[in-house]
Amino acid sequence: MKRTILLKLGGSLITDKEKPLKVKKNIIRNLAGEIKEAIGRNKNISLVIAHGQGSYGHYEAMKHDLSKGIQKESQKTGFCQIHQTASALNQIIVRELLEAGINAFSLSPSSMIVSRGGETRDFFIDPLVKLLDSNITPVLYGDIAYDEISGAKIYSSERLLREIALKLLERKIPVTKIIHAGITPGVTDDKGNIIPRINKNNIGRVAKYFRPVKGYDVTGGIAHKVDESLKLASFGVESLIINGSSRGKLLKKALLNEPVAGTVVRA
Amino acid sequence: MKRTILLKLGGSLITDKEKPLKVKKNIIRNLAGEIKEAIGRNKNISLVIAHGQGSYGHYEAMKHDLSKGIQKESQKTGFCQIHQTASALNQIIVRELLEAGINAFSLSPSSMIVSRGGETRDFFIDPLVKLLDSNITPVLYGDIAYDEISGAKIYSSERLLREIALKLLERKIPVTKIIHAGITPGVTDDKGNIIPRINKNNIGRVAKYFRPVKGYDVTGGIAHKVDESLKLASFGVESLIINGSSRGKLLKKALLNEPVAGTVVRA
Repeated sequence: MKRTILLKLGGSLITDKEKPLKVKKNIIRNLAGEIKEAIGRNKNISLVIAHGQGSYGHYEAMKHDLSKGIQKESQKTGFCQIHQTASALNQIIVRELLEAGINAFSLSPSSMIVSRGGETRDFFIDPLVKLLDSNITPVLYGDIAYDEISGAKIYSSERLLREIALKLLERKIPVTKIIHAGITPGVTDDKGNIIPRINKNNIGRVAKYFRPVKGYDVTGGIAHKVDESLKLASFGVESLIINGSSRGKLLKKALLNEPVAGTVVRA
Repeated sequence: MKRTILLKLGGSLITDKEKPLKVKKNIIRNLAGEIKEAIGRNKNISLVIAHGQGSYGHYEAMKHDLSKGIQKESQKTGFCQIHQTASALNQIIVRELLEAGINAFSLSPSSMIVSRGGETRDFFIDPLVKLLDSNITPVLYGDIAYDEISGAKIYSSERLLREIALKLLERKIPVTKIIHAGITPGVTDDKGNIIPRINKNNIGRVAKYFRPVKGYDVTGGIAHKVDESLKLASFGVESLIINGSSRGKLLKKALLNEPVAGTVVRA
């Protein structure tokens, strides 16, 4: 039985979030190697990857503030630039995945989505489902899509994965979990200890530990990640937040369902 | 009244078709400049661009022959590589268009299309229509899409533009014409003279002049272009085949509906 896992590669993990347009090539290469090892080991893993934008898309998004959509003609250029930069990072990530021997295929969120007032009006998920059926790994990314009311809506990779999870569940495709690989060892408290579990009972107590992201960010860092995860938890999909940059090959272990240090968000 | 023009930038025009992965940067820059001039001059031009693949996608497509689809596991890698290379060329083209001051937005055909036995089963055209409504120029490209029967189907940029034209007409969006910018002065006979008009009455007589493409090609060059154009002609959309590399700024003139040397395909 196939286990569909959704994997988020965090923007802070794959780029230097404090320097515009700076990727972490070695980290990306290591992650690609771990993913290849895991799917080579367990042929039943069916994987969807979405990556954040770090100092690529977020940098452009902060330069051309479109948080309220497209309000004047000149912002259309920003809209185009944000997408172009987001897609440039995707090119780099997919190339590394291919070089590691993963059959990775880029899907472009803004070609699949039309939103309306910030809510997804249409999400053409068919190509993604078909790729999964063929054991090819779709690779999406945080992107900016057309919005029928405001003109533009930023889709974070967390939000994309949540919407993908729900679409897959609707089609009776089981989703085992979502792994968020970032640069912190899960969600940590003020003493740096990992909070092993977050759910709707303790979210009120732990939310004070969610720190803002350093550097370029427009989607809200850990608070946004946990919020998206809680939304999914009620559908029975658990999220695991781990450190993707540690030496312990945590990503590989998490993909293989081995125990790893990190934070689990579940109902 | 908006005039929607579909523009094909030929693979031979924007790449060196005899050298793998070699773009013609100066030509691309000139074309972007001409497009910018034309849309700056006439605000009623609404433009959809699709570019060929030349020695990008065709090179990969010849390397991993997928003309019969995906028949063995190892061809999945080829499928992914072809898309990756096609999308890399698109990155370059869109960047140049943006630098020329055009609000260009990349759309990825394989994210919008599922085919079935070589016929389009679904084409999620909404993002393209929305961009056009906002005066943003969608830029698509020859790509490889998932096919429910064979696994993979190559979509040439000509075919994409034909399907887009029909979808726009269905939605009552008038399409003025399709311009094919290539490296020959239209379709020429054996003496090098331009054949000014092709229609279903003379196609039988002129088809003998259609020469095969030099270099990397999997979609069939001029014969394919004319075939796609004739299919559209019956819906009232005329095609104009011109030389995009000449010094006379033919592309700009064609966009502005000024008379230019070239071949017109109409019913």
